[in-house]
Amino acid sequence: MWQQLLTGIIQQDQRALARSISYVENEVPGYENFLSQLPAGNASITGITGPPGAGKSTLVDALIHEWVSKEKKVGVLCVDPSSPFNLGAVLGDRIRMSEWYNHPNVFIRSLATRGALGGLHPHIIDITALMQATGFDHIIVETVGVGQSEIEIAGLADTTVVVVVPEAGDEVQTMKAGLMEIADIFVVNKSDRPEADLFVKNLRMMLAPAFYQTKTEIPVIKTVATHKTGIPELANAIEQHQSATHHSERKDWLLTERAWKLIQQYRMNDIDKELLKEKIAALRKKEAFNLFGFIQSYTK
Amino acid sequence: MWQQLLTGIIQQDQRALARSISYVENEVPGYENFLSQLPAGNASITGITGPPGAGKSTLVDALIHEWVSKEKKVGVLCVDPSSPFNLGAVLGDRIRMSEWYNHPNVFIRSLATRGALGGLHPHIIDITALMQATGFDHIIVETVGVGQSEIEIAGLADTTVVVVVPEAGDEVQTMKAGLMEIADIFVVNKSDRPEADLFVKNLRMMLAPAFYQTKTEIPVIKTVATHKTGIPELANAIEQHQSATHHSERKDWLLTERAWKLIQQYRMNDIDKELLKEKIAALRKKEAFNLFGFIQSYTK
Repeated sequence: MWQQLLTGIIQQDQRALARSISYVENEVPGYENFLSQLPAGNASITGITGPPGAGKSTLVDALIHEWVSKEKKVGVLCVDPSSPFNLGAVLGDRIRMSEWYNHPNVFIRSLATRGALGGLHPHIIDITALMQATGFDHIIVETVGVGQSEIEIAGLADTTVVVVVPEAGDEVQTMKAGLMEIADIFVVNKSDRPEADLFVKNLRMMLAPAFYQTKTEIPVIKTVATHKTGIPELANAIEQHQSATHHSERKDWLLTERAWKLIQQYRMNDIDKELLKEKIAALRKKEAFNLFGFIQSYTK
Repeated sequence: MWQQLLTGIIQQDQRALARSISYVENEVPGYENFLSQLPAGNASITGITGPPGAGKSTLVDALIHEWVSKEKKVGVLCVDPSSPFNLGAVLGDRIRMSEWYNHPNVFIRSLATRGALGGLHPHIIDITALMQATGFDHIIVETVGVGQSEIEIAGLADTTVVVVVPEAGDEVQTMKAGLMEIADIFVVNKSDRPEADLFVKNLRMMLAPAFYQTKTEIPVIKTVATHKTGIPELANAIEQHQSATHHSERKDWLLTERAWKLIQQYRMNDIDKELLKEKIAALRKKEAFNLFGFIQSYTK
């Protein structure tokens, strides 16, 4: 079974990829060994995040369109519960996106967030590696920028694109600070709104200190995703960022963080947090609770 | 050695506590077993966080004063690099705080942040447990609310107090969103400023949705820490919050998170992240890099 899936993935067979993802999600015995045999893929991972309503899905749709028109293969992972890729979406959006489901150069997969509050899917690193091995040119991970997931996406993505919409000009500061810190590229979507120019100007001013710190200017790109305006510029900025960082120390650190998280995940795999909590709750009812005594049976 | 320290801690000897903390920080062999023999302490942990300049240290000073005047024993851990408890502080503040260093009912310790960017000290859970075992009535952990540390403190503290200062009234929204989400209690310090009332009003409005979600009103307390105004009210709010949550499921989850992190820490103890990165960087120069192949030697 695993050998067949591996062959399929090397042949860039999307059905083999889909099945592999399901097996990994369900931790079918042998999946860890299977993952270790994957060919290394070259595709960089582009994280797209931002507040609800910023138009992330429409932007992803436009990016797919841009890259597919250049004969590129695009894989999309969606971990945004409010996204049209998932349930609970407005019908119009879902229909629009569904055109890609049968396109041979496009692969879209939604992940149910599972377990940890606000965190990314526990197997998201594995799943992006599967997509890299399947030979996509571009991999997009879309996630809504709330809770902790936007910090985690910055640890997964080679390029983090933060999507915002222009609000009344002087309210640029209402943007969640966490989003400012992780952006490699800013997209101001819906930039045909009258207040867009002032918003972009304020955003650039806010980014100036970061510029002095990192010595790399953070691009701010204006788009109207529904009209595909600004999309070639965005695709270009993403590609530039990725070719500039591919051999960099930052990429070494990204891979180290991924390795660290994977090792941690495997090593904690035998513990169910819910059960752990029940044990602790039961013990606390009986006796004075010593955290360090309690964990001894897990650390030997 | 360990037996002597344990006896000292049970006798509430601060020198034994100070030495134990140093041994734990330096991971002197045997410290894990030592920790597992600690008596369970009852003191709740109060986290104090907020942006630089909000007056956190002055507030901590005033809280110590309040509790000490009621014959309580107070332990303070400071993981804020800009705090007067640490170096780099303005001289006046440092002198003011130093009065506590010789007080028999007050213990103050600064922790150098080590390793992980923006994270809390890796042994902070151990160290707070040591303080709990030493029989303090109140334990305060002060940390500056930047980066990820304010999210981590909410996982450590039984009560998280977020300290802010009034800005021009309509700019309450500039507050870092992460801080809004973790607050059990808000303190508006320097509330003798003219814009304070409008700021508090706006803050309460912003907190209203959270109120509907949690069905617990988040107290907003006005203080002028330099004049000790509002401090009894703050101490009271902290004590109320802690007695209300002590037997709650939230406390079970807090302890579960602490247990989880400790187990994780012990299980990852053999890996040095810097070395991991060097290995990865060296491998990437030689060959196509397979993350899952690479981690195999760490997961068996």
